[in-house]
Amino acid sequence: MSLGEFDLIRRFFQRPGAQPGVAVGIGDDCAVLTPTPGQQWLVSSDMLVEGRHFLPTVNPAHLGHKALAVNLSDLAACGATPRAFFLALALPRADAAWCETFAHGLFELADRHGIALAGGDTTAGPLNICITVMGEAPTGQALLRSGAQVGDEIWVSGQLGDARLALEAFRGTLSLPGEGFAQARQAMECPQPRVALGLALRGLATAAIDVSDGFLGDLGHVLAASGVGATLQAEALPRSALLAAQPLALQRLCTLAGGDDYELVFTAPAARHAAVRAAGQSAGVTVTPVGRIEAEPGLRVLDAAGQAFEPGLQSFDHFK
Amino acid sequence: MSLGEFDLIRRFFQRPGAQPGVAVGIGDDCAVLTPTPGQQWLVSSDMLVEGRHFLPTVNPAHLGHKALAVNLSDLAACGATPRAFFLALALPRADAAWCETFAHGLFELADRHGIALAGGDTTAGPLNICITVMGEAPTGQALLRSGAQVGDEIWVSGQLGDARLALEAFRGTLSLPGEGFAQARQAMECPQPRVALGLALRGLATAAIDVSDGFLGDLGHVLAASGVGATLQAEALPRSALLAAQPLALQRLCTLAGGDDYELVFTAPAARHAAVRAAGQSAGVTVTPVGRIEAEPGLRVLDAAGQAFEPGLQSFDHFK
Repeated sequence: MSLGEFDLIRRFFQRPGAQPGVAVGIGDDCAVLTPTPGQQWLVSSDMLVEGRHFLPTVNPAHLGHKALAVNLSDLAACGATPRAFFLALALPRADAAWCETFAHGLFELADRHGIALAGGDTTAGPLNICITVMGEAPTGQALLRSGAQVGDEIWVSGQLGDARLALEAFRGTLSLPGEGFAQARQAMECPQPRVALGLALRGLATAAIDVSDGFLGDLGHVLAASGVGATLQAEALPRSALLAAQPLALQRLCTLAGGDDYELVFTAPAARHAAVRAAGQSAGVTVTPVGRIEAEPGLRVLDAAGQAFEPGLQSFDHFK
Repeated sequence: MSLGEFDLIRRFFQRPGAQPGVAVGIGDDCAVLTPTPGQQWLVSSDMLVEGRHFLPTVNPAHLGHKALAVNLSDLAACGATPRAFFLALALPRADAAWCETFAHGLFELADRHGIALAGGDTTAGPLNICITVMGEAPTGQALLRSGAQVGDEIWVSGQLGDARLALEAFRGTLSLPGEGFAQARQAMECPQPRVALGLALRGLATAAIDVSDGFLGDLGHVLAASGVGATLQAEALPRSALLAAQPLALQRLCTLAGGDDYELVFTAPAARHAAVRAAGQSAGVTVTPVGRIEAEPGLRVLDAAGQAFEPGLQSFDHFK
């Protein structure tokens, strides 16, 4: 079935009803958004390309989910309340079945986080999904990468590494039992953005980032932006039983440099340890202390015996 | 020369110095934008794909210009003051020379309109440029498509059709003299968004849209959103001397359904005719009355003799 550009927008992406904060949504040259007094806007844009960020065989519903999830994860890392998003979509052809399934996955996640699709663009071209999200946080209260303080504990949410495990299985460098593969694939294709945790950490965490390119690289951004160093307990990094059953070198690759985790790494004063635990509990996600911020520049990675080792792993770079 | 993703952002797209309204720019999970009290945000997203919106041979500086221009044109159509934009870029390879030239064209236009690059994304993939722009307008004063009133005059800015003339020349369906080709190509590759005109029309125009898919189709969106009809003087549509020297059928194709013009079509009360002229003058762009809004639904297109004709032209659709 062939559909035109405007049919496609109307049929699958335009939804009835008013959305809070969206004065004018899809259907004009611009969307019109009304800011909440006393709040700032948090904005992030992520582009997903076939063969690079997802496999051509992916379920379009999972793709719709993931395209929004990776953007919501940026809002989560800033402690922002999701408000509106914009979807630009290049499709090889106007495929109604594909669009319907994609939209289903997209809106299922959008509705769960109360975020409105306020505009966008569709065009023909190699499959490419670009989402720009907007959220709000009280002025001056957004979580940034630059606030980590000497003495802070370093925390990470959920578990790291299963997405990379799935990628390695797809690449054929390892094989997983059917159930294990399904679990890892779920982590890769349907990450859950930690929006509630981000909100609970406002006024508590001193710095935060989401793990998209790999834990070491992303923690490195926090250290650089904050002008501090850290010591990390590598084996404290939370991982699934599935990953914990793999060889240690693979566990380290997946947890330290896996990428695509969309968990939050954040720092908070050691004196607020119990409050951080409570924030995780209120957000329904485990939070694990994995290290300490120090004045000495650089990152020292310790093994289970407390011995420093050189992980020798690179963070993910799309051009390398 | 091969560059990594972060090098590329730092080297070509991250610029020093504070930008008004941008509390935190490139380099965190989200940009942080501070709204101006009493204003709403106008947001639009456009995606440009190689071979569809531009030719592989285009000068990257022109491409940088055009990618931002088509987005600024959406802000212009809403009467918004440009504030910040987000650039997501998929590149076949991290080509330093290409990025430098692209950034040059992009920032030249950005600086002219005082808009800051506040964030974005870069990745490997088939060439794709997705820009999301944000602007502001006083609450309730944005120009929309839905406000045209019976009796309003229909106006268009600048000239229509040269971009389509260039496209036809590239396609080989006609040949233009060297100088004429250069002029048409300039219109196609370096459109000038009518931002100053959009601002001057606030409180004056009743409805506005920018001409991106073709005049008839875009005017049709205004009529549909406003629940009105119109009569149009086809030969009143402003065109260059170059286009006026072409056969009438080609003139009509280019002016009525050319696409890629990025002029504004807007409506205003006939009693404000002189004020509209003055707005054009203050913005440094000619404005031409081309028709009238009527209660009778549909669009009646008249030739120079006042006879109705059926243009039989389709607006541009990326999937057709």
